[in-house]
Amino acid sequence: MDLHGAFHVYDTTLRDGAQQEGLNLSVADKLNIARQLDGLGVGYIEGGWPGANPKDTEFFRRAAEELDLQHARLAAFGATRRAGVAAADDPLVAALRDSGASVVTLVAKSHDRHVELALRTTLEENLAMVRDTVSHLVAEGQTVFLDAEHFFDGYRANRPYALEVLRTAYEAGAEVAALCDTNGGMLPTWVGDVVGDVVSSTGGRVGIHCHNDTGCAVANSLAAVDAGATHVQGTINGYGERTGNADLISVVANLELKLDRRVLPQGLLAEATRIAHAVAEVTNVPPASRQPYVGTSAFAHKAGLHASAIKVDPNLYQHMDPAGVGNDMRLLVSDMAGRASIELKGRELGFDLSGDRDLVTRITERVKVLESRGYTFEAADASFELLLVEEVEGHRPSYVDVESWRVITETQAGPGAEALSEATVKLTAAGVRYVVTGEGNGPVNALDQALRQAIGQAYPEVAKLELIDYKVRILDQGHGTDAITRVLIETSDGESSWWTVGVGHNVVEASWEALLDAVTFGLRRHHR
Amino acid sequence: MDLHGAFHVYDTTLRDGAQQEGLNLSVADKLNIARQLDGLGVGYIEGGWPGANPKDTEFFRRAAEELDLQHARLAAFGATRRAGVAAADDPLVAALRDSGASVVTLVAKSHDRHVELALRTTLEENLAMVRDTVSHLVAEGQTVFLDAEHFFDGYRANRPYALEVLRTAYEAGAEVAALCDTNGGMLPTWVGDVVGDVVSSTGGRVGIHCHNDTGCAVANSLAAVDAGATHVQGTINGYGERTGNADLISVVANLELKLDRRVLPQGLLAEATRIAHAVAEVTNVPPASRQPYVGTSAFAHKAGLHASAIKVDPNLYQHMDPAGVGNDMRLLVSDMAGRASIELKGRELGFDLSGDRDLVTRITERVKVLESRGYTFEAADASFELLLVEEVEGHRPSYVDVESWRVITETQAGPGAEALSEATVKLTAAGVRYVVTGEGNGPVNALDQALRQAIGQAYPEVAKLELIDYKVRILDQGHGTDAITRVLIETSDGESSWWTVGVGHNVVEASWEALLDAVTFGLRRHHR
Repeated sequence: MDLHGAFHVYDTTLRDGAQQEGLNLSVADKLNIARQLDGLGVGYIEGGWPGANPKDTEFFRRAAEELDLQHARLAAFGATRRAGVAAADDPLVAALRDSGASVVTLVAKSHDRHVELALRTTLEENLAMVRDTVSHLVAEGQTVFLDAEHFFDGYRANRPYALEVLRTAYEAGAEVAALCDTNGGMLPTWVGDVVGDVVSSTGGRVGIHCHNDTGCAVANSLAAVDAGATHVQGTINGYGERTGNADLISVVANLELKLDRRVLPQGLLAEATRIAHAVAEVTNVPPASRQPYVGTSAFAHKAGLHASAIKVDPNLYQHMDPAGVGNDMRLLVSDMAGRASIELKGRELGFDLSGDRDLVTRITERVKVLESRGYTFEAADASFELLLVEEVEGHRPSYVDVESWRVITETQAGPGAEALSEATVKLTAAGVRYVVTGEGNGPVNALDQALRQAIGQAYPEVAKLELIDYKVRILDQGHGTDAITRVLIETSDGESSWWTVGVGHNVVEASWEALLDAVTFGLRRHHR
Repeated sequence: MDLHGAFHVYDTTLRDGAQQEGLNLSVADKLNIARQLDGLGVGYIEGGWPGANPKDTEFFRRAAEELDLQHARLAAFGATRRAGVAAADDPLVAALRDSGASVVTLVAKSHDRHVELALRTTLEENLAMVRDTVSHLVAEGQTVFLDAEHFFDGYRANRPYALEVLRTAYEAGAEVAALCDTNGGMLPTWVGDVVGDVVSSTGGRVGIHCHNDTGCAVANSLAAVDAGATHVQGTINGYGERTGNADLISVVANLELKLDRRVLPQGLLAEATRIAHAVAEVTNVPPASRQPYVGTSAFAHKAGLHASAIKVDPNLYQHMDPAGVGNDMRLLVSDMAGRASIELKGRELGFDLSGDRDLVTRITERVKVLESRGYTFEAADASFELLLVEEVEGHRPSYVDVESWRVITETQAGPGAEALSEATVKLTAAGVRYVVTGEGNGPVNALDQALRQAIGQAYPEVAKLELIDYKVRILDQGHGTDAITRVLIETSDGESSWWTVGVGHNVVEASWEALLDAVTFGLRRHHR
């Protein structure tokens, strides 16, 4: 099956996605992401605008040498020639021609007012710019796609002209004209109507490029496909300017799993969750837990109401098998959960609790009591696992005997100097007593340093543990002094990470509890 | 215009939204959010399930006493009676009846397999449960809405039975039957087809309840309205289980601004951005910058290419005027945003800044720099007022000269003893130097005690100030030790309360900054 011919899945993470506020990709980042996109099996990867900035020029140079793409073709993005210049003489067009990319995607104006106000040229010259640039690049052997910028607004303002731009591109040899909802204000029925009209009026191959300003980017893309578009643009994790572009994974998953259209090579959609998270690691944008299909919460169930029936038939409570996108069902333990979810959660962690009703009752009761005191186990899997082990094995896993700890935070001398924290921990580990002092730029860091230095003398493997996130929540509003503080800590061993919870009137004490659980969990995993 | 009658905007943030992983609302949080929702002008606020858990029972009790809703009616959520029991004898039904809510939303099974597997009763008994419970509550004077759970899957599995459940509810007196896409797997065209069929087959009033598992919750809701639904459920910021519920603000903004349907009281949609962010402060879920309509990036432009054309006509580059939802256009390169809101804010605080362009520019620049470092003045009015006064009067209001402070937190002897904090503050107030030590059950409480004891000797009026809420957020994810901490503190003088902000690597230092601002603000107000 030739997926390049049948249906185009066109990724623009490296170009339009990179317009997102706060997102900044190096050339190495872009090469890394391109490999991930190829692993997902997209047909086209838009790499950037060679010639417009040195980074993108460099990307195409290195891509030609270093990327060995299995599925995707690389597309160079650029604009039609400047007004009043031959396409062959425009240096920006030359940069596209010489980029090494076999596909060029040309952005062109299709909204009459934008031609006049932003390009400052005539409607006729804009058509000539489209015609000349497309035919020049086609003559040079490249495949050309046209991005019709502001198409939907332009269609409303001047339908004949908007269609004329597309016809001009098709006649000059463009393979696709992608209709761009550049400002992102469209709704699905509108997109469907316009795409249907374009398909029947021009007879050309139509593509769609949506932004999420109305919260409908995915649905708009599907409406376009339903109306005859056979080329869909989007970005991984919906990155992009303002509210972002259409999330390509959601679009593709809906097409394949809901509408039975094969748009990726067989089996690759199951890589989606892994790839979405890998790309998020490169962009350093924290993944959205609620992201459709690939979010960590996308198949997480909280309600105790459902858990008993989930045991009987999980498909009654999920819209698809999460394995189809490489995700997993998870059950959250919470005060709304009952016995059935505790049992299921136990199974997830490798404990078969089904034979012991008393044990399940005991654990369920303890969770309820602790959650009423402010603990939350749905967000702290590792603390829940320690609780489970304690109930199953009769004692809580423990590697140290803590005698006492103390933290001092104080202002430093000198103007503008930041406060410093110093913690002293006294504990016994593997039969030896340690008194260790650690410093940090906050009380929890200082405690973490002291704790891991002390334990590390008996268990050197704690050296690779690292506190990577820390959340504090005050639970009881009202009088500040009686408030209960909940601390959640995320710890990594470089391969995976886990959350632990601590609760108390004193924020430092709550942090200490979560820190100790974090280290205990890490050591237990290591020693199993 | 009676918006309760014409079109229902039904918010379920406090019930279905609270199912979100990691979201945990206290009764005070729920009351706070209910006030915000009322300020947005929604018609109905689903408060929770009274009788099912003590927290929700307490919420309805306190709501009856403390909430003075201007626009919304409170709805209690609950289930149809148990199998084999009269509705009047079911204690959970009694809890709904006695909740004080004038509206009850009953969840009922409409999918045959769920009746058999989850309810473990017959299809006939399920219909009787619907009929009895609805008619009992209607007879007791309550308005009843039916939430038809798993309706879309049920319709596919057994259309006649799914419709029979709705007809039974309508005949028993239910005003609305809301069709729930409980598993969230639907697409807009499917939703439209089913809703259209239900409207014409039953003749009843139809509602829609969508989840975002396909990334189409907003579009699915709109498709339902297009097909005849006149009741839309959703949550603020799209909170909810798994991928979340339909984002009510996106749905409402699309209905009002794109489809010209009035569904909120005049003018209230312009509060949407403020309210979405205020609710996020309560839930402590960081707001998504790319959120449609209300996200901080929703109208942010990486200018460059467009800059000059944006100046000529901004509407060429945005799908609507951001003021319609209380948001602002921002240009990320040459930021000219903020000036107008700074002026407005100044007026609100009693400063007329309109005559002094340089002053407004200076304040705008300082706010921008400080916000890029992690401060937030939107949530900390008092700190902003101090900044404003500093710029207007040339020096920051100050009542003390702080020399140094130190906090010690340590474990206490004895089993089960909680850790204790002790703070020493050295400062000069009204010409006298004080060295004072305070104790507290946490470092911030101890500092607060010491600070107010020291200042209180010069300014006795600080005795009535009280720290009533405290929030901590870690701003930089990644490596814990480099993270920046933001602290927000709410202080009361018994009559009103104000928020201050502090930022720093050290959580105690950030807290100190916010504490000092809080006391300064309180003293300044007293001495004016």
